[in-house]
Amino acid sequence: MMQFPLLLKTFLLRAAKYFPKKEIVSVYPEEIFRYTYADYYKRTCQLAHALNAIGIKRGDRVASVALNNHRHLELYFGVPCSGAALHTVNFRLPQNHLAYVINHAEDRVLFIDEDLVFFIELVKDQLKTVKQYVILSQTGKMPQTTLSPVVLYDEWIAEFPETYDWPEDLSEWDPALICYTSATTGDPKGVVYSHRGLILHSFAVGCMLGVMERDCSLHIVPMFHANAWGGPFGGVGFGCKQVLPGRELMNMEKICRIIADEKVTFTAGVPTIWMMLYNYLEAGGWHDFSSLKTIASGGSACPRFLMEGLNEKYGFPIMQAYGMTETTPLALAAVPKSTMDHLSPSEMYDVKSSAGILAPGLEMKIVDEKGEEVPMDGKSWGEILLRGPWIAKEYDKDPERSKPVFAGGWLHTGDVGTIDAEGYVRLVDRTKDLVKSGGEWISSVDLENLIMSHPSVLEAAVIGVPDPKWQERPVGCIVVKSGMTLTPDELKAFLKDKVKANWWIPQQFAFIDQIPKTSVGKFSKKELREMFAAGKMPLSG
Amino acid sequence: MMQFPLLLKTFLLRAAKYFPKKEIVSVYPEEIFRYTYADYYKRTCQLAHALNAIGIKRGDRVASVALNNHRHLELYFGVPCSGAALHTVNFRLPQNHLAYVINHAEDRVLFIDEDLVFFIELVKDQLKTVKQYVILSQTGKMPQTTLSPVVLYDEWIAEFPETYDWPEDLSEWDPALICYTSATTGDPKGVVYSHRGLILHSFAVGCMLGVMERDCSLHIVPMFHANAWGGPFGGVGFGCKQVLPGRELMNMEKICRIIADEKVTFTAGVPTIWMMLYNYLEAGGWHDFSSLKTIASGGSACPRFLMEGLNEKYGFPIMQAYGMTETTPLALAAVPKSTMDHLSPSEMYDVKSSAGILAPGLEMKIVDEKGEEVPMDGKSWGEILLRGPWIAKEYDKDPERSKPVFAGGWLHTGDVGTIDAEGYVRLVDRTKDLVKSGGEWISSVDLENLIMSHPSVLEAAVIGVPDPKWQERPVGCIVVKSGMTLTPDELKAFLKDKVKANWWIPQQFAFIDQIPKTSVGKFSKKELREMFAAGKMPLSG
Repeated sequence: MMQFPLLLKTFLLRAAKYFPKKEIVSVYPEEIFRYTYADYYKRTCQLAHALNAIGIKRGDRVASVALNNHRHLELYFGVPCSGAALHTVNFRLPQNHLAYVINHAEDRVLFIDEDLVFFIELVKDQLKTVKQYVILSQTGKMPQTTLSPVVLYDEWIAEFPETYDWPEDLSEWDPALICYTSATTGDPKGVVYSHRGLILHSFAVGCMLGVMERDCSLHIVPMFHANAWGGPFGGVGFGCKQVLPGRELMNMEKICRIIADEKVTFTAGVPTIWMMLYNYLEAGGWHDFSSLKTIASGGSACPRFLMEGLNEKYGFPIMQAYGMTETTPLALAAVPKSTMDHLSPSEMYDVKSSAGILAPGLEMKIVDEKGEEVPMDGKSWGEILLRGPWIAKEYDKDPERSKPVFAGGWLHTGDVGTIDAEGYVRLVDRTKDLVKSGGEWISSVDLENLIMSHPSVLEAAVIGVPDPKWQERPVGCIVVKSGMTLTPDELKAFLKDKVKANWWIPQQFAFIDQIPKTSVGKFSKKELREMFAAGKMPLSG
Repeated sequence: MMQFPLLLKTFLLRAAKYFPKKEIVSVYPEEIFRYTYADYYKRTCQLAHALNAIGIKRGDRVASVALNNHRHLELYFGVPCSGAALHTVNFRLPQNHLAYVINHAEDRVLFIDEDLVFFIELVKDQLKTVKQYVILSQTGKMPQTTLSPVVLYDEWIAEFPETYDWPEDLSEWDPALICYTSATTGDPKGVVYSHRGLILHSFAVGCMLGVMERDCSLHIVPMFHANAWGGPFGGVGFGCKQVLPGRELMNMEKICRIIADEKVTFTAGVPTIWMMLYNYLEAGGWHDFSSLKTIASGGSACPRFLMEGLNEKYGFPIMQAYGMTETTPLALAAVPKSTMDHLSPSEMYDVKSSAGILAPGLEMKIVDEKGEEVPMDGKSWGEILLRGPWIAKEYDKDPERSKPVFAGGWLHTGDVGTIDAEGYVRLVDRTKDLVKSGGEWISSVDLENLIMSHPSVLEAAVIGVPDPKWQERPVGCIVVKSGMTLTPDELKAFLKDKVKANWWIPQQFAFIDQIPKTSVGKFSKKELREMFAAGKMPLSG
């Protein structure tokens, strides 16, 4: 077979030549912008020329500070196809982390949404490598800014030709995108995605979730969060219609309108979003989900009641998927097998609410503390280890922290799970969030899900706290739904027949206003532990 | 990303671990044999041990002389995953070619279906490298044979362990399978498929045709014909149910029964098969096609009336695809775009009967005689050039004949086609089958399709023959349906308003009993030209 490298250029050219009339839709506060892959392609060519003109070379890194819009999608292909790598910056990081990731990646150019300029202004004096700021503006006006030198993207690229000779000598191993994980301890860790990894991930997503040309893909996951979970790459490669919701990704009324108007078939997102959607729907919010085919929930465990509620009451065909920044991200998806069509609805939700079955192209082991594979009995716990062509091999320029995570050629996910005889994995906990009480393990996640199934509970997180007698005991941190009340005794009674053993039931609860979240919307148990350690948690029990 | 090679082993392990209960069904004259991927895996492990035991090493070649059955499917994975390469021999080749390909490939072991032993006995004295014959037998009895040394496959592998440590140091570029094209001139040419190529081809087929776990794949294409068009690889990788029809692949009553009983969703085959199916259905043959989702026709152009008839009258969802031995084989597929849903049935068949649109992952150029890309106007002709990770880079050990075909890093397909504004290619002819009459080109394929749309014509092939005035003129070689009659004048009148220009209409026809076919079922125009040159063609006009 030909020594033909797997490059994003091949996907881009296919869309431009053979799907020139298919649409990209980008939602802005004042307008819904539409253009075609033919238009899109011309601007990626102009962008590539513009990068060359300011001396950006193969292997250089440039960064985006942007939400999900059509200019960001131009960067997704224009930058890597020209030979540079695109660092998609999570602008919600704390300031010190924001400056850290840009310096650590050695970003030479920053592409910034016009309404996100503020975030960069705050850290600009700490940035060591940036030599050009470029504003992504839909209004066409240069915002008031202290950033310099600065240009408007549309004006900057406009002078360049609409065709480009994409380099053919790139290696498929060359960096294409870079994401930093929002590290719970220490500085963020960079993951570099190769052209090869992104192409193979796109194919696997297509074959696993059935995404193809016919699909209209709505990108709810921020484009700085693990490549928007890969959707934009397969989207271009397969010629899908793509919809970018911009700043409206938390606006459930708008999202429901977009799904109906654009006939969206596929989307993905974190449980926080689905909880917002569910609350919107429960309040009688308008929706028409008739076009939807497949919805993937990932990032953290989606409570089963939420999946059942969305599916059964509203025909929102949600299932779980599993992955992380280090896995591009899709590693598992809870697609029921064709041999499971006879299952009862309840059994079917057991499947759909699992973390899923391994994607084709990857290899997995679930190992106990001795490194032995646990039996496929749906009960035995172990850490999930993954390897494959779209699994990271290291953290960028960080051999020290890479060593334990990537030991032996496997990614040690830090997630603890079971696997059943059919191959479906169920997450038990993060290795570091497990609560060890009297020598026995308690899964904080299982406990949270049980607590969140109480009708008065909006959100719940469980952390382990030191205990003189039992080593550790779980504490339930609870947000009660507005207008409702709940006491520790009521909760304990509710949990009594549901927990695996009575000693799983927390003695202590903390009723708080909100669960602190990480910058990508996950529960921050680190912050909860700090609150507890500082004596700032209002315990009752 | 990890330096993780794309190996067939990863697909095999996934099926064994996570789809252990999914079925493989193998049809024999006396029984329908069924087993699971768990059983299948054990036997591939035993096979790998057995190969090691007789000294087969990484890079060695072994061959199969077999039809589509479960033992052949074990060879498809057991051989390449153990590090050797499987040469799938087309036993219908002429004897001298049969000996040539086995010697040229340097096959060390021959795996032979019990009822195909005869073919090899005829050439055994010419074989220079074979040191072991292995009989694939469902009856369990060693056939009477002069082959030596010879063993029964089931007995031979039975003594070995049912687990195997697959080598992890194979390169994804290592040979996995080998096929020879049935060359129209000279010796057959070998194409070597790498692990990488087969994995990527599987993914592209999945994303292009929508094949996934839920599909039940029936392999009608012989497993010696371009990897059975790749179906077995994606089948294992995605955990599909697979059905192998054995010797029944030409028995339309049996094929229709299998489709209904096994709830087949996907299959593929050459037009010769679909013509047999159509004739069976037109004669009132029993069928139930309710499970079918996608049927791909390839190998040669499927006449439009046949596609329309099968679809409209019988709900047989056939569309065209395009490829060749050198392209693994899928390169194009005539999947209508989602934006074409409003087309009339007739316009839709224009799309479905095209050669199709380029598969994701490949690059294509259609170039005129000067090497310039022809415009996407649906009219301009050019030769189709392809490149990509599952396109051959050469013919095995044949630099001389490889040079022109793979010049400049592109496969020169020898097919002439047009491409329309939506990216759909339509084949005009083989470069060597075009008829040049008075300086203008006539497409033999277009003319054949017009002739075959006459209700009395069973088959038709058009060849160019020398002409003193016009350089070349087309001759129509016609097989009339049994019980019907047809004269040259009737045919000329029929063609009058259908051809692009009146000078396309042949002056001369040859009414013959059958069109000679190549060993893979295509019209052999080479033989027709030889008949003409030898004065053995009964011309009338």
